[in-house]
Amino acid sequence: MNHAPNLSTADIQRVDAAHHLHPFTDYKALNAEKSRVIARGDGIWLWDTDGNRFLDGMAGLWCTQIGHGRREIADAVHRQMTELEYYNTFFKTTHPAAAKLSEVLAELTPEGLNHVFFTNSGSEANDTVFRMVRYYWQLLGKPSKQVIIGRNYGYHGSTVAASALGGMAGMHAQAGMVPGVHHITPPYWFDYGGDMSPEEFGVWAARELERAIDELGEDNVAAFIAEPIQGAGGVLIPPETYWPEIRRICSERDILLVVDEVICGFGRTGNWFGSDTYDLKPDLMPIAKGLSSGYLPIGGVMVSDRVAEVVIEKGGEFYHGYTYSGHPAACAAALENLRIMRDEKVVEHCANEAAPYLQQKWAEFGEHPLVGEARMKGLVGALELVPNKPNRAERFDNVGQVGTMARDFSFGNGLIMRGVRDALIISPPLVMTREEIDQMAKLIGKTLDDTYAELKKQGRIG
Amino acid sequence: MNHAPNLSTADIQRVDAAHHLHPFTDYKALNAEKSRVIARGDGIWLWDTDGNRFLDGMAGLWCTQIGHGRREIADAVHRQMTELEYYNTFFKTTHPAAAKLSEVLAELTPEGLNHVFFTNSGSEANDTVFRMVRYYWQLLGKPSKQVIIGRNYGYHGSTVAASALGGMAGMHAQAGMVPGVHHITPPYWFDYGGDMSPEEFGVWAARELERAIDELGEDNVAAFIAEPIQGAGGVLIPPETYWPEIRRICSERDILLVVDEVICGFGRTGNWFGSDTYDLKPDLMPIAKGLSSGYLPIGGVMVSDRVAEVVIEKGGEFYHGYTYSGHPAACAAALENLRIMRDEKVVEHCANEAAPYLQQKWAEFGEHPLVGEARMKGLVGALELVPNKPNRAERFDNVGQVGTMARDFSFGNGLIMRGVRDALIISPPLVMTREEIDQMAKLIGKTLDDTYAELKKQGRIG
Repeated sequence: MNHAPNLSTADIQRVDAAHHLHPFTDYKALNAEKSRVIARGDGIWLWDTDGNRFLDGMAGLWCTQIGHGRREIADAVHRQMTELEYYNTFFKTTHPAAAKLSEVLAELTPEGLNHVFFTNSGSEANDTVFRMVRYYWQLLGKPSKQVIIGRNYGYHGSTVAASALGGMAGMHAQAGMVPGVHHITPPYWFDYGGDMSPEEFGVWAARELERAIDELGEDNVAAFIAEPIQGAGGVLIPPETYWPEIRRICSERDILLVVDEVICGFGRTGNWFGSDTYDLKPDLMPIAKGLSSGYLPIGGVMVSDRVAEVVIEKGGEFYHGYTYSGHPAACAAALENLRIMRDEKVVEHCANEAAPYLQQKWAEFGEHPLVGEARMKGLVGALELVPNKPNRAERFDNVGQVGTMARDFSFGNGLIMRGVRDALIISPPLVMTREEIDQMAKLIGKTLDDTYAELKKQGRIG
Repeated sequence: MNHAPNLSTADIQRVDAAHHLHPFTDYKALNAEKSRVIARGDGIWLWDTDGNRFLDGMAGLWCTQIGHGRREIADAVHRQMTELEYYNTFFKTTHPAAAKLSEVLAELTPEGLNHVFFTNSGSEANDTVFRMVRYYWQLLGKPSKQVIIGRNYGYHGSTVAASALGGMAGMHAQAGMVPGVHHITPPYWFDYGGDMSPEEFGVWAARELERAIDELGEDNVAAFIAEPIQGAGGVLIPPETYWPEIRRICSERDILLVVDEVICGFGRTGNWFGSDTYDLKPDLMPIAKGLSSGYLPIGGVMVSDRVAEVVIEKGGEFYHGYTYSGHPAACAAALENLRIMRDEKVVEHCANEAAPYLQQKWAEFGEHPLVGEARMKGLVGALELVPNKPNRAERFDNVGQVGTMARDFSFGNGLIMRGVRDALIISPPLVMTREEIDQMAKLIGKTLDDTYAELKKQGRIG
């Protein structure tokens, strides 16, 4: 049993197909092909076992802020594991790494967020939110406040409750819904904006929340949950008018604002948190991914003073937690990742160097005949592919097919992007240099050209 | 920002109290005291920052099968992290460690379980079960089969759906219930057996399942979920007649059997799985904890050929998964843990040496005037504390108070046990030697005597 096995690619593919059920996968389709075996990472690059190199345009899966293969984190984890590889944080015990990380998170996160509840993933963080908002209102003697309002195309993870908070219809159909969740229209101007300007539409979309509260009854609504920018839903960047109006509504109505920073947190939008970028005041703030740059599994919920005071002072035992809440090795990985991000000014680099430079390239892609909209904030963006550029409303038939085609061309060109419906999305490591961005932009340009040529050949564009 | 900080105990306690919301904790009560800071582990021992040493009678939290501080795992994780610290297993990609671990798990787990879906925890594994059983029946054209039958005092984790599967009333009250879960009486003879012999009661308790299926309608029932031995519910070891009768019912009725091996798996009951000990044939089998001995967070669901064939052949995309499903570093930790367990014959040691020896001591504790029942299987056991030994039915007032008192005496004596209601429970590392068991038994005996003396002093026993 060798865990860095000298197996051939074919052997790995064979045992993988025989025994491994991948996430979000059509198994029959995968078994008809073969898995690509990723074996090594360094900086923005990944290599498969056949020696092919890929530029990791998705930062692992929206997480590898500092890039792959930073040995300091492996060393920090090793040090922690040789001291205390694991002990729980139940039963009135803690350990130095969990305590220290909780302090660092209180420092880094927006004002008023001073407590953390640790989980192993963003899914568990959002699942914790589901429970905590209801618990909060119970403790305040308002048990009728149960409904959580989310958004279509929202993504908050894959547990049954987290997927209910999200707005992915396919997940709901398979998992079943949990009662007490309501979804509103997302601030997705490109698809839903109609004749409104982005600014008008932003206000309209925000007022969807107000209309939902009125319809459901404020006494029944516990919280509104939203990503600052919707990630897995297709990098939906709200018009600048959206969040100010949401903040107005949340301050006038007696509901909690939950800002899911699993993707936007830790520098992605050019500030430490999306809440900084949009000046939000979250009551609860789920985090994960960039917290450890994905080096080890860890997530958490940042809890505002407003909520923490009630839970601490009025609650008895909070009946919730995970065996690995605040796992020492995972906390050590997160601490070292955050040390690197602070010492090397990774967020500043993103804001002042990498993001402006990529955004400039992005504007150029907006001129491509296949691109109906090129949007980006910080280092997260999307290119909407359309068949007839002057007409924003026109779409390809069989939504998703062209996005997948473009995604496959991108892989073939050595760049990992993701297709969502017919958009190509990107979320690269925050540490990218100008030279690396030039390389990436070239691959994106080629991918657009390849896709355009193929669609022309198929007679699907004029 | 130093992750192995040279902070004083008082500093760690201060930042922990200020910023860290622990799992399953009464925060106000904890803040009135102070957290104990665990800083080092080696073998069966833990040390706090004040230099106090504790024998870890709970194996971390039912997980550290091989004991603390095995450097080989830290080294294996370090090797993996310097090669590929993270990449996802979405989008038709895999990596060597995830593929290899899936193969090893197919070898080690009972016959017919040949696929694994990776998660980060037992909670996420059981949450996955919730979704997968419903998906299975949907794919077979039986969408009405939605109800999952669990048991009171069952514990299947802490996500909203996992806690619904479990039978902990306090969790349900705080989190809300998910529709479509039904709970039956557990095979807990000591509390529920009445005048029946354990053997009679085992059959009666199993037939609770049959009665529930009849009541709910077989066309509405998707699955029965159960731990081989209920762990967090108080180490409820079923009478020997229970599981054969459950197996009969499951084979006669068209429902899935889900065997939650998060606690019982990886040697705890003296075989690799509780399913081996009780000769079960699980359709789905959630695992975690002992999978990595807790060294890094990882869990999974073992999927039987029966279920896998349907999901692979009839399903399209399974819309479920976690960013860190099959995390390379966590897979490397699990692989090295399983290598150690196989090479060092840890399960055989548990079955042939440690368990029989501790069980002998356990029988002696059964003679203590405070102990109403001493039960143990493999290396997991409970001591039920009662005020009036000859009368099994008599209990202490304020259930839980005496259990907590005994638990605190145990901590004071340098032994970590857990109190559940008025039982003391234990689940030590599987690698314990006879000498270590002698040491542990001495501390247990002292804890029983201390508790007995205190209760006598308080006039609560005769």
